[in-house]
Amino acid sequence: MMTSSTNSFEPVEQSRHCTFADVEAARELVYRHLNPTPLHEYPSLSKLIGGRAFVKHENHHAVGAFKVRGGVNLSGTLSTHEREVGLYTASTGNHGQSIAFAGKIVGAPVRVAVPEGANPAKTSAIQQLGAEVVFEGRDFNESLEWAMKAAASEGARFIGPTDPKLIAGVGTYTLEIMESLPDADVIIVPVGAGSGAASASLVSKTINPNIRVIAVQAERAPAIHRSWKAGRLVTAEMETAAEGIATRVPQENTLSMLCDSKTGIDDFVLVTEDELFRAARLYIEHTRNVAELAGAASLAAAIRIRDQLAGAKVVLVLSGGNISMKKLREILEYDQ
Amino acid sequence: MMTSSTNSFEPVEQSRHCTFADVEAARELVYRHLNPTPLHEYPSLSKLIGGRAFVKHENHHAVGAFKVRGGVNLSGTLSTHEREVGLYTASTGNHGQSIAFAGKIVGAPVRVAVPEGANPAKTSAIQQLGAEVVFEGRDFNESLEWAMKAAASEGARFIGPTDPKLIAGVGTYTLEIMESLPDADVIIVPVGAGSGAASASLVSKTINPNIRVIAVQAERAPAIHRSWKAGRLVTAEMETAAEGIATRVPQENTLSMLCDSKTGIDDFVLVTEDELFRAARLYIEHTRNVAELAGAASLAAAIRIRDQLAGAKVVLVLSGGNISMKKLREILEYDQ
Repeated sequence: MMTSSTNSFEPVEQSRHCTFADVEAARELVYRHLNPTPLHEYPSLSKLIGGRAFVKHENHHAVGAFKVRGGVNLSGTLSTHEREVGLYTASTGNHGQSIAFAGKIVGAPVRVAVPEGANPAKTSAIQQLGAEVVFEGRDFNESLEWAMKAAASEGARFIGPTDPKLIAGVGTYTLEIMESLPDADVIIVPVGAGSGAASASLVSKTINPNIRVIAVQAERAPAIHRSWKAGRLVTAEMETAAEGIATRVPQENTLSMLCDSKTGIDDFVLVTEDELFRAARLYIEHTRNVAELAGAASLAAAIRIRDQLAGAKVVLVLSGGNISMKKLREILEYDQ
Repeated sequence: MMTSSTNSFEPVEQSRHCTFADVEAARELVYRHLNPTPLHEYPSLSKLIGGRAFVKHENHHAVGAFKVRGGVNLSGTLSTHEREVGLYTASTGNHGQSIAFAGKIVGAPVRVAVPEGANPAKTSAIQQLGAEVVFEGRDFNESLEWAMKAAASEGARFIGPTDPKLIAGVGTYTLEIMESLPDADVIIVPVGAGSGAASASLVSKTINPNIRVIAVQAERAPAIHRSWKAGRLVTAEMETAAEGIATRVPQENTLSMLCDSKTGIDDFVLVTEDELFRAARLYIEHTRNVAELAGAASLAAAIRIRDQLAGAKVVLVLSGGNISMKKLREILEYDQ
């Protein structure tokens, strides 16, 4: 299904996929450091989406986003050498926090390359976790390229955004969803590098092949949507304000998982910038939870496709809440 | 220690106290409907308070505040007659949600009297839970008086804000704190009707007599602070913007628990309106959690007494997040 990639900085390790058994195996380490997050039903959101709205609160982690589950799982696999020499990664923010958290657990130095103008709430959180933030590159993919080269020149380990250990750790939130709500009909999940959506689809469809998994990107950053439609890796423009889903170049392994005929996603929705701002505003109004724009994408998509959701039990993955204060003010002032 | 009360509308049942065994017994029913909430450490908040800051996230309940634990516990004690005739209560908001939740669990009609100008986020949430909101009285205590009379005239059960079953249910959050952080040094907790502070003190000091429990009220609503100092029930003005701790007339049973020589609180701090707004703003900046002003009171107090907290493990009870959108905008615009 996938054609060969022109993505020259794709590390070999990322070509490997993550299996359901990998996700199950991740639980032990993940729950040594993190608690399960709640899945709450909100009747007033249900009125907006046509079906019953259940929100998976990945914003309730201490570091405010789902990615930390991956870092914790990865931390258990680091060699003594890797812990000493340290880790390199690149991130728009939440992935960087996840790897910083992993470094903190095992005492490994961590350097995170972030694009110029990165969300200060996220870069500051990375630093609070003891990692170093390096501003390199105009966008995430340029930061990624820089971090890979720097790691190689120092003999340090580079952690890509979709390392299989990260996908497996992240997949634990979908195990929690399926335990809390075994008869869920639909899961809607935002796509950045794809670890959340790929694992959500793998895990939920392994447990219940009839569940529908719907991925979401921004109309202004549709690279993975286009790749999924085309069945091959396609790059696209990347102009969304939602940095958590601002992907210009898809990752091969998560894209392949999303495209899997059995455990891949069922549909893919694009939402406008206006819809993202409106959804973040609605989360505050109806639940008093702060969602970053990427985190609000699943609610934005559910509102857009509400005609398809009548009577369904719909899980909205609120993937993270690490928004900048500036953007939070814009959301509160947003005229609906 | 307590002198006789002049509080003519104090129901007899509220003169009873809640014991540690009552709190332990509440767990079973509470966890049938609710999950434990996280206790997260935030290094960047620690810098503000001098000690290590651990936040107890009672805002993470689906209904956004700790009181729901009490309602769930109470729901198990309702007779068939009470379920049929229904329940009356009065509330500034969060207690009303708690009783509405109890009514929903057992299918009992609930009427909640709220003061004129009550927080619309809270009144709307009460209605979402299927209860009726009745605007009666200029403040909470007038609403309370109305609800008691209405209940009596209809032969319905009136649920006071500090019914022992409510205190016992609420006390489960402190059991969780003591399990997560057995070596906590200080717990700081806001005081409204007193069920949170009274149970926090009872539970934590029964488990560890050396822990320090510090209660907080607003300078502009100091009735319980004055009563605690005087050792008898004293009323006071009530002009704070933090409706969750806006108490004019203390409740006898929780006041008596706060004054207990063994399991009562160790200290009582008053904070200004400015300090409450600033603390709510800091919660958003540092944790992306929305706290209502009452919920932010423990952080406000910790900042005020930071000289006493050096090196201590300090639990800040973030009791609720149900703030109005208007006040949330004020907090974000608040000039620090």
